[in-house]
Amino acid sequence: MVAVEWSDSGLRLIDQTRLPEEEVYLLCSSSAMVAKAIRNMIVRGAPSIGAAAAYGAVLALSEADPQAGLAALRASRPTAQDLFAAVDRVSRAADPLQEAHALVRETVAACRRIGRLGAGLLSRQPRFITICNTGGLATVEYGTGLGVIRAAQEMGLEPTVLVMETRPRAQGARLTTWELRGLGIEHRLIADGAVGRAFQEGRVDVAIAGADRIAANGDTANKVGTYPLALLAREHGIPFYIAAPTSTVDLGTADGAGIVVEERAEAEVTTFAPAGTRAWNPAFDVTPARLITAFITEIGVVKPENLASLREAVRSTSG
Amino acid sequence: MVAVEWSDSGLRLIDQTRLPEEEVYLLCSSSAMVAKAIRNMIVRGAPSIGAAAAYGAVLALSEADPQAGLAALRASRPTAQDLFAAVDRVSRAADPLQEAHALVRETVAACRRIGRLGAGLLSRQPRFITICNTGGLATVEYGTGLGVIRAAQEMGLEPTVLVMETRPRAQGARLTTWELRGLGIEHRLIADGAVGRAFQEGRVDVAIAGADRIAANGDTANKVGTYPLALLAREHGIPFYIAAPTSTVDLGTADGAGIVVEERAEAEVTTFAPAGTRAWNPAFDVTPARLITAFITEIGVVKPENLASLREAVRSTSG
Repeated sequence: MVAVEWSDSGLRLIDQTRLPEEEVYLLCSSSAMVAKAIRNMIVRGAPSIGAAAAYGAVLALSEADPQAGLAALRASRPTAQDLFAAVDRVSRAADPLQEAHALVRETVAACRRIGRLGAGLLSRQPRFITICNTGGLATVEYGTGLGVIRAAQEMGLEPTVLVMETRPRAQGARLTTWELRGLGIEHRLIADGAVGRAFQEGRVDVAIAGADRIAANGDTANKVGTYPLALLAREHGIPFYIAAPTSTVDLGTADGAGIVVEERAEAEVTTFAPAGTRAWNPAFDVTPARLITAFITEIGVVKPENLASLREAVRSTSG
Repeated sequence: MVAVEWSDSGLRLIDQTRLPEEEVYLLCSSSAMVAKAIRNMIVRGAPSIGAAAAYGAVLALSEADPQAGLAALRASRPTAQDLFAAVDRVSRAADPLQEAHALVRETVAACRRIGRLGAGLLSRQPRFITICNTGGLATVEYGTGLGVIRAAQEMGLEPTVLVMETRPRAQGARLTTWELRGLGIEHRLIADGAVGRAFQEGRVDVAIAGADRIAANGDTANKVGTYPLALLAREHGIPFYIAAPTSTVDLGTADGAGIVVEERAEAEVTTFAPAGTRAWNPAFDVTPARLITAFITEIGVVKPENLASLREAVRSTSG
């Protein structure tokens, strides 16, 4: 399964809103279609969003009004840093398609390296807890948080996973369970509220999440529910890792207070509620850097107190 | 609406599994029917469970094998203290039906007093966050946590409420929103994972929950997700209250480690997951006493450091 793939007729996306019931693909032949697919979360997960936006930019640059197409891509979702980085990079390139291919190759390679580096931190039979989906669907094909779990399995460590359902869109229940089953990794689904009890009963060795944006000071925006998970991990002395490529680091945002948190439609939350119920639906929260044991990136495992090295690496890459 | 009501033909329960879609009542004419209604959460919420169990015991005592009926009631759910207290009290009484009526009257009176005492702690326009359902449905007719919110409204304080959905059974989304709408109290539903972001954005003045069992040291079992809520409240300097009648205090359990936490069917959690997905479904968690700002009970507002007075009051009542 490749979540985001270029073809001669355009960008091919697996429709993540229809999994796990149906494995259906969408072909986007215009930048507007890509922007809509990002907005509607047909493609989701910061690295996959970045890859889709890169190819969306390729399409935009061949259209009648390239700037309008690029602007629509940038406006599709506000939080994921990879989206903006990808559109900027491709739109400045001499050969946009080759640049998009390079970006995607780098993303996939970064994820495999994140997996190996992360797995190197583990003991045998690590019991993970994860939120949302950080697998191949979210990252073109391998995974960030789930990449670490996959790498652990490939190294024979026999990982098991508690999968947070991740309401309102249930990416954990729908997508992470689907990927873990395909990989043959033992897992159990839990309600998001059960995360505290999981720590209380000593069922967790490692908590791991992806990232949508990492501010310069290490504060990290990720799927709503990540911050409570990190706080509980700290309370129970369990390591909490953010697994993300350096493309997720945003040096232009000093700290978490500067990160725009998307609020999505109320209808996502009101699944079980009486008709007409109002909701509040922030899609992300911000985990303060002090709660993060380390960032697992393709350039190394970086503790919050050593973030200067990560910032330097990002600065030299984007320079 | 009265959630639990005795009639000449038996015990009448509003079916809480069918709200908010349908307002349907179930008539239980045997203790076995009451035990099944408790097990299947047709009646739920510790005080309502206690009331239903009290009348269930009345029925049991008129049946061919009273001890079997009482045992089935005690085995229906393991965590709510009110269930065991009610069965014991009614089965020892000279006039079981009058004793059950007295217990229910005391429950309702306790809730109204809890509401008044709790509302006395508040400033104007308090912004609450709540988990699960602690309203009339959970407590025969007024509410514990939601009783405080109702009393605040009755006192003209104009409360608003963030309602945690409370997966897996969505009592917040299904029941609390339904009650708040009926009461005309402004509210917004949130995903359980959004609780951290609510505190981050400064949207909460008071966190309030009910209780299924309060151990002698103040550790409190309540709906799974309560412990993360309490931990976040502490992290953000927001008061976290447990509103519960003294019937919920279990002097026979020294601390939270001794509380049996029910694990319910996996199917409750797998709503959005691929068929065959395994789940882990603890129905409760335990909030350590140190995270609880105060217990709002019918005999007063008691801080964890003053629990001796609460224990003494419970001891004299049950003695």
